[in-house]
Amino acid sequence: MTVSTDLNIDRATAGNERIILSIDAMGGDKGPAAIVAGISRSARKNPDMGFILHGQAATLAPLVAKRKNLAGICEIRDVPDVVKMTDKPSQTLRTGKNTSMWSAIEAVKNGEAAACVSCGNTGALMAMSMIRLRKLPGVNRPAIGILWPSRSAHGFNVMLDVGADIRADAMDLLQYALMGVSYARNGLNLPRPRVGLLNVGTEEHKGRPELHEASELIESQANAADYEYVGFVEGGDIPGDLADVIVTDGFTGNVALKTGEGTASLISQRLREAFAYSIASRIATMLAYTSLKRFQQRIDPRRVNGGVFLGLNGTVVKSHGAADATGVAAATNLAFRLAQSGFSDRLAKRIATSTQAAAQNIAEENPTK
Amino acid sequence: MTVSTDLNIDRATAGNERIILSIDAMGGDKGPAAIVAGISRSARKNPDMGFILHGQAATLAPLVAKRKNLAGICEIRDVPDVVKMTDKPSQTLRTGKNTSMWSAIEAVKNGEAAACVSCGNTGALMAMSMIRLRKLPGVNRPAIGILWPSRSAHGFNVMLDVGADIRADAMDLLQYALMGVSYARNGLNLPRPRVGLLNVGTEEHKGRPELHEASELIESQANAADYEYVGFVEGGDIPGDLADVIVTDGFTGNVALKTGEGTASLISQRLREAFAYSIASRIATMLAYTSLKRFQQRIDPRRVNGGVFLGLNGTVVKSHGAADATGVAAATNLAFRLAQSGFSDRLAKRIATSTQAAAQNIAEENPTK
Repeated sequence: MTVSTDLNIDRATAGNERIILSIDAMGGDKGPAAIVAGISRSARKNPDMGFILHGQAATLAPLVAKRKNLAGICEIRDVPDVVKMTDKPSQTLRTGKNTSMWSAIEAVKNGEAAACVSCGNTGALMAMSMIRLRKLPGVNRPAIGILWPSRSAHGFNVMLDVGADIRADAMDLLQYALMGVSYARNGLNLPRPRVGLLNVGTEEHKGRPELHEASELIESQANAADYEYVGFVEGGDIPGDLADVIVTDGFTGNVALKTGEGTASLISQRLREAFAYSIASRIATMLAYTSLKRFQQRIDPRRVNGGVFLGLNGTVVKSHGAADATGVAAATNLAFRLAQSGFSDRLAKRIATSTQAAAQNIAEENPTK
Repeated sequence: MTVSTDLNIDRATAGNERIILSIDAMGGDKGPAAIVAGISRSARKNPDMGFILHGQAATLAPLVAKRKNLAGICEIRDVPDVVKMTDKPSQTLRTGKNTSMWSAIEAVKNGEAAACVSCGNTGALMAMSMIRLRKLPGVNRPAIGILWPSRSAHGFNVMLDVGADIRADAMDLLQYALMGVSYARNGLNLPRPRVGLLNVGTEEHKGRPELHEASELIESQANAADYEYVGFVEGGDIPGDLADVIVTDGFTGNVALKTGEGTASLISQRLREAFAYSIASRIATMLAYTSLKRFQQRIDPRRVNGGVFLGLNGTVVKSHGAADATGVAAATNLAFRLAQSGFSDRLAKRIATSTQAAAQNIAEENPTK
């Protein structure tokens, strides 16, 4: 049973309404200490932030007490169970009602918090979010969208789906495009985002049949939904400057994301080895300290940590399971920014209008279907 | 019509039989000059190398004459036409008989050369190779295999398919595993390679249905074909140390390859920017020159340039279209090494035995099919 207490957070801040985030404090590989350290770091930069922390109070209370800046802005909600990384999503739906993850989503559902953050099991988090928050009207498959470091002027591209669902038909891919556009507008402040559809070549005859159908659909909605469609893009364009939103199915997107992370991590290791090699290069490292630091920050995947669940009634941010305090702070910052911009409501409105229009267009073009 | 001349290459070398490579000299973005420079560089390191160079003699003859080390080991075969990067593969099959690409493959087909190298249009090269060299008995879909820089002791993993075919069923994926194992044995000198099947998670319940079927098939052949099956792997394992051979369909593999290349290129750019930032870091760059050079060489995609077409009667190496002389030399070295080891014949034998055994096992397990 979820033990619920009154929300004892001071809601008054310096002129603004405090934005409450619901935190699953038990998920993730590094445990509650990293999560509490992360939200504390995030709160230092955002004075309007407040938290409901879900998990075992006996573990969490001493961790919170150690962070002075969390006093008065952090409530602990005592729940006994924890979703394990190896639990099957379907199983957690049946037996997971007393978990920190379930409780964290519940606080968004009943309006106590503006967004939920979890480092836990992705499949379980998506399954619980779908059951409790429900899909937006008109959305068939929700997606996970991320910000990918890129060559573009704003420094990031939106990519989706990176793993909510391994399948996606042409209509799903259109919805991903619409959701990605909305995310790019709110998350990257781009008024008219450029959308690309991931394929194995940019020529029109290449790729799977459903991609050709999706390409036509996405092109047909560009004006109505106010984005630019640049056509097919390739893997090399994910960190490139050709498109702001990269649309793909969750299988391909997940492989691409993890390949990119793995490549970046291998290169960082090789760079460290190269600089540890000789005395001259060690002196160089000291001289180049700030440059190397700047470089590492620019490619540090922890600083852009956070996959956003798109297509639900409410904002859920999935942090990397291996996130440390820096990673948790990044995911918490992202959830805060999205909550602050009213992202969830704006996305819902956009999807409702665009999906209706698209469905109507398709029905008119294919009267026999 | 292909103008054919007698093979006027000196076949005697220091004790060894000269290995003749068939080079499509007109393909690629950088033109014939880069290709001739590349084979010249490769020949300097491999005294047993000889070439048949296919393309417009009027263009090629002066380029070859400039490279003293090509004298006596390089024949030019004058062909008028060139396959363009934008040509449709099916079209080139009908109208491409007078192209440098067709002629280059033909020299492997009729036994004049041990392997073919081209920087040209991948789809056209695969289509022509399939038509002229034919698939190995028992192979349904040929694949393109590459060496991917990795954390493993030998420095590289084999990954396939990176783009020969966008589809692959369970039986195709088994054949990719067998071909990849053979490549790892000959290319990386691994007696018992570890094979992983690319998926979105390592848990058994995750991923597409055909992957579960393929996983069982690949596991069932591990002992007979003398490899170790490590199960599902993720994108992050492509540059990792968990598997030596990464098996996937050509759509996913192509996206992963290009995502990895794009990520590496973005990181290199950021590193250059970081080191150009301040005076201290410029001095550091000079001090760290050899370390940075070593680092760049270790992540330079040109040094592992060359996708090998697997599953055909003959060896064809596809170089990156944008390859410069360094890239062309790498692809030429690879073709030479594979020809020297008798790779094509060994692969053919392995596939014949393993596919027969697999088909028999499957027939026995599913007597009704």
